[in-house]
Amino acid sequence: MDAQTVTADAHALGGAGGSAAAPTFLEQLIEAGLLIPSGVLGLYGRSETFEAIAESLNRMVKRLGEDHHAETLRFPPAIGQHDFETSEYLKSFPQLAGTIHSFCGDDRGHRRLLARLEDKEDWTDQQQPTGVVLTPAACYPVYPVIARRGPLPPEGKIINVMSYCYRHEPSLEPTRMQLFRQHEFVCIGSPEQIIAFREMWMGRGQAAVQALGLPMELDVANDPFFGRGGKIVADSQRELKLKFELLIPVNDGLGPTACMSFNYHMDHFGALWDIRTADGGTAHTGCVGFGIERLTLALLKHHGLDPARWPQSVRDTLGGQ
Amino acid sequence: MDAQTVTADAHALGGAGGSAAAPTFLEQLIEAGLLIPSGVLGLYGRSETFEAIAESLNRMVKRLGEDHHAETLRFPPAIGQHDFETSEYLKSFPQLAGTIHSFCGDDRGHRRLLARLEDKEDWTDQQQPTGVVLTPAACYPVYPVIARRGPLPPEGKIINVMSYCYRHEPSLEPTRMQLFRQHEFVCIGSPEQIIAFREMWMGRGQAAVQALGLPMELDVANDPFFGRGGKIVADSQRELKLKFELLIPVNDGLGPTACMSFNYHMDHFGALWDIRTADGGTAHTGCVGFGIERLTLALLKHHGLDPARWPQSVRDTLGGQ
Repeated sequence: MDAQTVTADAHALGGAGGSAAAPTFLEQLIEAGLLIPSGVLGLYGRSETFEAIAESLNRMVKRLGEDHHAETLRFPPAIGQHDFETSEYLKSFPQLAGTIHSFCGDDRGHRRLLARLEDKEDWTDQQQPTGVVLTPAACYPVYPVIARRGPLPPEGKIINVMSYCYRHEPSLEPTRMQLFRQHEFVCIGSPEQIIAFREMWMGRGQAAVQALGLPMELDVANDPFFGRGGKIVADSQRELKLKFELLIPVNDGLGPTACMSFNYHMDHFGALWDIRTADGGTAHTGCVGFGIERLTLALLKHHGLDPARWPQSVRDTLGGQ
Repeated sequence: MDAQTVTADAHALGGAGGSAAAPTFLEQLIEAGLLIPSGVLGLYGRSETFEAIAESLNRMVKRLGEDHHAETLRFPPAIGQHDFETSEYLKSFPQLAGTIHSFCGDDRGHRRLLARLEDKEDWTDQQQPTGVVLTPAACYPVYPVIARRGPLPPEGKIINVMSYCYRHEPSLEPTRMQLFRQHEFVCIGSPEQIIAFREMWMGRGQAAVQALGLPMELDVANDPFFGRGGKIVADSQRELKLKFELLIPVNDGLGPTACMSFNYHMDHFGALWDIRTADGGTAHTGCVGFGIERLTLALLKHHGLDPARWPQSVRDTLGGQ
């Protein structure tokens, strides 16, 4: 599906349900005002109610990891191109990344730009890369920062991050947004530390989703690695069980949606950025990620579009400060 | 200053103060861990302390506008290209906008991309515009949403928005970030409603800054409209007093920084999106915007880098829930 088609579809969507068929979950969310269409698939405004749920999930995630006494860092939704290149994201998911481009011309170039715009032609040919790339996953800015600090303490390091992330995958599924929030705990240390961290979070994640009254299953992940070579990487990821996902059915008539993931990167990021453990070895890393929009949507799907009418146990789980 | 130079400077900066001169405010912020360099000027991570101040400012802004009973909307940090074009931002500030581009090639294109990357050449030539543009100001997504709803109620409409915004202006001034948050109240209605709204907020804004113990002045704005034609627009903006700014000295040896702005757009956005008042006229719009990072930096500059040691009156002003 190309960008033009998608935009046209989304405009139709924004016009809302003239069709006789039962409204899709996305149409219900838009009709209830929870998501606000923007004319682009996967790009939505959020109502106050939607945001209140998202914020209570963010607080819940922080509470779940309170015993880590993690360092909290917050990054804007972009990283430097140099760090992005180092991450090797382009090897696996070139199609999902978003680079930021700006007009760098003069008065004459500006007149050309405006003339194109006036004639409804493409005006982006003068846009130049700015050296800034949208954050593909909330933990990506963390690794270079930790690397620059020098060797880790013996107990390793746990960081809490949360940010908007970008992925270029326009979709009619509300769970597949182009801009969405990931809330993560990132663990950097020895293989044993990462594996214990991940094991613990798989338990905590499942307990939290149970307390939220949602159906789930845990499975090894199936990431969309790019191209023919990507299939081999995907097979290896599954074989080595490097990534587990907590899946919840959310969308109409489709497979369940990964709402949390539990990742062991082995020494991938540690080697790329030369992160060292206290004893001088290459650090291993792992992370647990919560998809804030996806969990919000899962709650709305299973408990209804009005949070005031959700089961008390669910509201209690979300409600604490 | 081109992007390469800026990146090199920033790397030097990240390496921190070998120079004998007194550290700049930016160097102090980095040294204290409040801002975390990314290798790109104007792109910083935020520490937990920085974020706690930013969040308390966000709560303060909401409290200040509580009597509006505004509708709260939250948008991700990007808008659709169609809405962006409609806004006419490209007429005034083409140099500041950021368009998002993605790789749309096949396996062969991917191999070419990776070969370029390997050879440290520019790999962005296959990036295609995605139809998504970074939000230039927090209120931009609001106007098309309100327009699509039909005519306004007689009392007009006030919306609360807050989001990351992007502007391509790499700078050594910490107050000039490429990604930063604006918290706004947007008023849509009759000219009288907008002018009264703006007048009231100029008073509220000044009172809030006084309670925060910060020096200030209020002045008409001096926006960087692009090119030779831009000078005329800027002169007209000043003459018509369409935009006031609340300025606070923050950076070393530079003029004061606009930390709030009070804007009257006349019928500019109302006409572009055909927003109608209850009696069928073209709506006028205005907004008050709080620069969350800039206010945070102003507090750190004037009260010191440790919020625990700020005057009690300042902490009380920030502290309420």
